[in-house]
Amino acid sequence: MKIALLGFGTVGYGVYELITEKTDMQIKYVLDLCTHPEISAISTTDINDILNDKDVDTVIEVIGREHPAFEYIEASLQKGKNVVTANKLVVCKHYDYLTSLAAKNGAALRFTAAAGGGIPWLVNLERLKRIDSVKEINGILNGTTNFILDKMCREKEEFGDALSMAQKLGYAEADPSSDIDGLDALRKIVLSANVAFDVSLKNEEFDSVGIGNIDKQDIDNAAADSRVCRLLARAKKGDDGKISLFVEPVFVKNDSPFSNVELNFNRIEVLSGINGVTAFFGYGAGRYPTAQTVVNDCIDVSLGVKRPYTFKTDKCFAENSSVKQKYYVRANDITALPKHLNITEYKNAYITDYVSVSEMHKIYKELNKNGNKCFIAAVI
Amino acid sequence: MKIALLGFGTVGYGVYELITEKTDMQIKYVLDLCTHPEISAISTTDINDILNDKDVDTVIEVIGREHPAFEYIEASLQKGKNVVTANKLVVCKHYDYLTSLAAKNGAALRFTAAAGGGIPWLVNLERLKRIDSVKEINGILNGTTNFILDKMCREKEEFGDALSMAQKLGYAEADPSSDIDGLDALRKIVLSANVAFDVSLKNEEFDSVGIGNIDKQDIDNAAADSRVCRLLARAKKGDDGKISLFVEPVFVKNDSPFSNVELNFNRIEVLSGINGVTAFFGYGAGRYPTAQTVVNDCIDVSLGVKRPYTFKTDKCFAENSSVKQKYYVRANDITALPKHLNITEYKNAYITDYVSVSEMHKIYKELNKNGNKCFIAAVI
Repeated sequence: MKIALLGFGTVGYGVYELITEKTDMQIKYVLDLCTHPEISAISTTDINDILNDKDVDTVIEVIGREHPAFEYIEASLQKGKNVVTANKLVVCKHYDYLTSLAAKNGAALRFTAAAGGGIPWLVNLERLKRIDSVKEINGILNGTTNFILDKMCREKEEFGDALSMAQKLGYAEADPSSDIDGLDALRKIVLSANVAFDVSLKNEEFDSVGIGNIDKQDIDNAAADSRVCRLLARAKKGDDGKISLFVEPVFVKNDSPFSNVELNFNRIEVLSGINGVTAFFGYGAGRYPTAQTVVNDCIDVSLGVKRPYTFKTDKCFAENSSVKQKYYVRANDITALPKHLNITEYKNAYITDYVSVSEMHKIYKELNKNGNKCFIAAVI
Repeated sequence: MKIALLGFGTVGYGVYELITEKTDMQIKYVLDLCTHPEISAISTTDINDILNDKDVDTVIEVIGREHPAFEYIEASLQKGKNVVTANKLVVCKHYDYLTSLAAKNGAALRFTAAAGGGIPWLVNLERLKRIDSVKEINGILNGTTNFILDKMCREKEEFGDALSMAQKLGYAEADPSSDIDGLDALRKIVLSANVAFDVSLKNEEFDSVGIGNIDKQDIDNAAADSRVCRLLARAKKGDDGKISLFVEPVFVKNDSPFSNVELNFNRIEVLSGINGVTAFFGYGAGRYPTAQTVVNDCIDVSLGVKRPYTFKTDKCFAENSSVKQKYYVRANDITALPKHLNITEYKNAYITDYVSVSEMHKIYKELNKNGNKCFIAAVI
């Protein structure tokens, strides 16, 4: 197997190390904008060197972001080269196009590291659904926010201090908004749902509530009811075939298996018709866990795994009006809360009656207008 | 793929259903001693019908126990037929012989369902170690004992009542001794260690302490220190390359991920050099979870997975003298406790100083002589 490695950053360097030290696969090119003396003999900054080299059968993309990663993946597949990537943004946004392109060109497209990092999540989901039908996926899919929530719950840290600590430890980016707002977890649950339900979800926007407004008092209020706060990503296929999908803070009970997922670990559980509950736990990010998954994808490709990700071509949208649950709401100004929610006071906050996820997320946006800082969490 | 199914009991029936309803594989024979009208057209009681039929490429063994399952597996492999089995007893006892026999005859031998039931544990362990090095495995590998311990810890049930409940629910056999004594978990951790460390462990006897002597007061004593009792199976490869392997009750902290493994669920974690911690959770037994794993093994075989289980031929023994930990000990008569353990009183029991697993398990046997009922648990 002759490989071109696109990107020589945190994950790229790990992939380079693991491939050269642990496998007999050969890296023929490394494409990176920066100069790295240790790989000067195989360095290039021109993607055409790789695309035009028939010797290269597999391209690993770990540049990140949308451009030029998307164009490089697209061009590689068009040339019939297998692609292994960890890029959740690109695969999530262009799922149907890229999986179809891979199929059309007889190339493999593998992206196990795009959801779950070091956890062999998507490969197992794929293996399970060969004979089982997936009903539901629930996961802690973002390590940064879990680290912050865990520090707040267990060590009574303030949000800002916990975030700074995550940044110091390299878990959170300088701009952590895509983690905090739930966008990163959302991309991963969309990918998971696509694989689980054989669809390519087409929503312009998906539904997420983040943890940016959480406060110590919310953690205390959860604890008073023997609960902790976790940011859960959830996807479900109803008996009517409709898919719901969203990310939001949840007050889970202390004895929930999600409650003692510590630090920046991830945990993903899948409920299926035959197997019941199966769950996976591990590092959702980090150089070596992610690189390990990328390299294992390459080994799978070398063993002949070609095109496991398929989907029905009908347009499919996720919609959250049928999932109803109670919510914890803390807000300065609750005039935007509709009467039919039948709120009851709880500490310095409120608990609603059962309300649909789609309605509650809409209300959440209303409650946060005019500079207000409202926090909500599902109570399940 | 043409299949012969040996055994039409709980798991066998599930396998039959899943293969006929969910796959395009064909079951050509079912071998069972009992008559089942619904499969009379393909029934046989003579293994030679199957062995002599060149059309049959894969044999599924779900009879259980050692004989004649071992002989049937052996003869099938000798004929070059692939074998998929859930039989931990046979594969554990004859690991090197059967894996070598499979290799010699170019046949696949798959036994994912033998450890972890519905959890895709061994396949993932195998996938991980293609590039990673396993250091340690810790697992709740027996659902029956976990059900009993969970009922005792969470619902304050007595041991006998919890066991009866497990039997009523079909989790425990009429003779539950191989579960209670830790033997079932031991076989599964031996198989896991063989796969993880590329060995074929040769101990005449392995080291286990069961939960038969546990009492409500032990659960209370654990709870007073914010702990619960779990039966853990553990295997570790030290920096010196030596392997320790044992099963014993452990008082784990309430915030341990093992503490809220409820009912008859299993949880297995693997610590490895590159990936850190990865863990798997699900049903370790039961008709459909186990059948699902057996059928997925068959699909893997049909996709060309041949012989992933290899081992070094040197004789390798597990030995537990280098693992030292503190133990909780409750015994009527503690005269057999050596002085160097420096025991301190704890409630109506004792806590030892650090002592090796091998020594403590030996002492445990002494303490249980003369009809005494002593209970010990590692405190980690």
